[in-house]
Amino acid sequence: MNHVVLTGDRPTGPLHLGHYFGTLANRVALQDVHPMYVLVADYQVITDRDLPGAIQGNITSLLLDYLAIGLDPAKVTIFQHSAIPELNQLLLPFLSLVSVAELGRNPTVKDEIAHSSQQAVNGLMFTYPVHQAADILFCKGTLVPVGRDQLPHVEMTRLVARRFNERYGPVFPVPEAMMGAQPLLKGLDGGKMSKSRGNSVALSATEDETAALIRGARTDAERLITFDETNRPEVSNLLTLAGLCLGRRPESIADEIGNGGAAALKRLVTEAVNEFLRPIRKRRGEYSEADARQVLSDGNERARERAIVTLGEVRAAMGF
Amino acid sequence: MNHVVLTGDRPTGPLHLGHYFGTLANRVALQDVHPMYVLVADYQVITDRDLPGAIQGNITSLLLDYLAIGLDPAKVTIFQHSAIPELNQLLLPFLSLVSVAELGRNPTVKDEIAHSSQQAVNGLMFTYPVHQAADILFCKGTLVPVGRDQLPHVEMTRLVARRFNERYGPVFPVPEAMMGAQPLLKGLDGGKMSKSRGNSVALSATEDETAALIRGARTDAERLITFDETNRPEVSNLLTLAGLCLGRRPESIADEIGNGGAAALKRLVTEAVNEFLRPIRKRRGEYSEADARQVLSDGNERARERAIVTLGEVRAAMGF
Repeated sequence: MNHVVLTGDRPTGPLHLGHYFGTLANRVALQDVHPMYVLVADYQVITDRDLPGAIQGNITSLLLDYLAIGLDPAKVTIFQHSAIPELNQLLLPFLSLVSVAELGRNPTVKDEIAHSSQQAVNGLMFTYPVHQAADILFCKGTLVPVGRDQLPHVEMTRLVARRFNERYGPVFPVPEAMMGAQPLLKGLDGGKMSKSRGNSVALSATEDETAALIRGARTDAERLITFDETNRPEVSNLLTLAGLCLGRRPESIADEIGNGGAAALKRLVTEAVNEFLRPIRKRRGEYSEADARQVLSDGNERARERAIVTLGEVRAAMGF
Repeated sequence: MNHVVLTGDRPTGPLHLGHYFGTLANRVALQDVHPMYVLVADYQVITDRDLPGAIQGNITSLLLDYLAIGLDPAKVTIFQHSAIPELNQLLLPFLSLVSVAELGRNPTVKDEIAHSSQQAVNGLMFTYPVHQAADILFCKGTLVPVGRDQLPHVEMTRLVARRFNERYGPVFPVPEAMMGAQPLLKGLDGGKMSKSRGNSVALSATEDETAALIRGARTDAERLITFDETNRPEVSNLLTLAGLCLGRRPESIADEIGNGGAAALKRLVTEAVNEFLRPIRKRRGEYSEADARQVLSDGNERARERAIVTLGEVRAAMGF
């Protein structure tokens, strides 16, 4: 099957190793197999925050992260949805296909609402799954890599595509979710890895920043290093991180360290991460911020051409 | 004050004399005073109906109605909102400024929902007042002629404009509603005048159609014609209609008819309406359907240029 892949991120801060091993590595592999659109979901930032703030800087650094990990702008279309009016217009016909009750039942929206910094649920947050349907369907995306918590959004997109096709004729494919692996990595403090908690190694971190972050990681007092996720979650998490960077099993790394204790473990993890990030840092150094903005501008143009065609089909199907 | 007027109609059927004396005459007068945008609200048709149906034909005949009554496309910008992606994109930032609770409380939405032919409230109907805010604010409309039932929509637009300006800086004027006169005319069957009930004289009706419609109007059995809205609403309604067409007081028309009865009354009303519609019919005959489509196409282009400028200001103010 000839898939079109739609994936992306909110430009809310630097990408980190958790993103890399969770989803970004997969994108780099998929770009050689399928056409791919990578969405910079800038409007989603205003769904759950009061101010877009440093959004422009975040977008540029997100582009640099993409280029650094090896996303190839000749193969993938990287775009920001706020720059594509024809994509956003799809929200209107799509909203007419979904009931308010269905919107209110969406579990991810409920979750977003619960975690929101705003006092009341705003209309953009409430309609966000339908906007995501526009993000996916404007390019006739068929394959959407997601985490488990985003499955309901893809379900909403499938519903919108099916209802549109039933009512107005066949325009849209019904996309499939591609479930990623569960997150392998926890934060260096043992909590959930998060952009905002500073408990993760950003892809843009320097060698020294990386060393400092790992030096501050939680471990335990036992000298003998073992891989035991139940009883020694922090030590095991560091072993997993080193294993991912080195392409080795964490157990074998533990064996190698033996009685070296937390200090030896952290030394090894620091070296493994820095070694792993070396080619990524090198590629990042090859691009300027102006390059990043140009890549986005080119991608916006390509995405817009796609959106214009799709909106034309939608208007024709609807008899406008 | 230099106003910009925003007004418009849903393309759901031919305009009739109730529209003319209620709002259209006012537009024709205003076009010489202020810049004016006239919206063909084609997306609103899908908010409350399952299928857009004969929408394209309705749009063309609406344009012919506008041209026939004397709206001058050199003075007013007539456009359909589905053709202006940059206008529709405004829905997204605007939705983030309004809470779901505020949307649910809007009395016009409640009313739309109650009168809807659909089984469930869809997302487009629910967010419709915010879409109307985009319709008004894309051209920085400052004056919005409305009937009483639409006042809450304008209130929503004012709320959106104020909140946008507070959060992101001054971009939008806070528009004012311009309350039209209450409807002067009832339907020829004595009920509410309505496009769908066939109880009104369409601006596009021929002389014969007009005569047939008025011949079928409800009256009463009393021979002496008097203007008495409380006790003789149907007869008084016909007198009002003749008065509007002739620019005379209905009482004086009643006096003139005296003991002529319903037949004389209907004869007089038919002549008055046909006389009134003569120049409108003549102007309609001067335009082809192709002319009407060209007027809309030109208007869409002008409206789009306006929307592109406004969306650019919005994106800049938001830091995108």
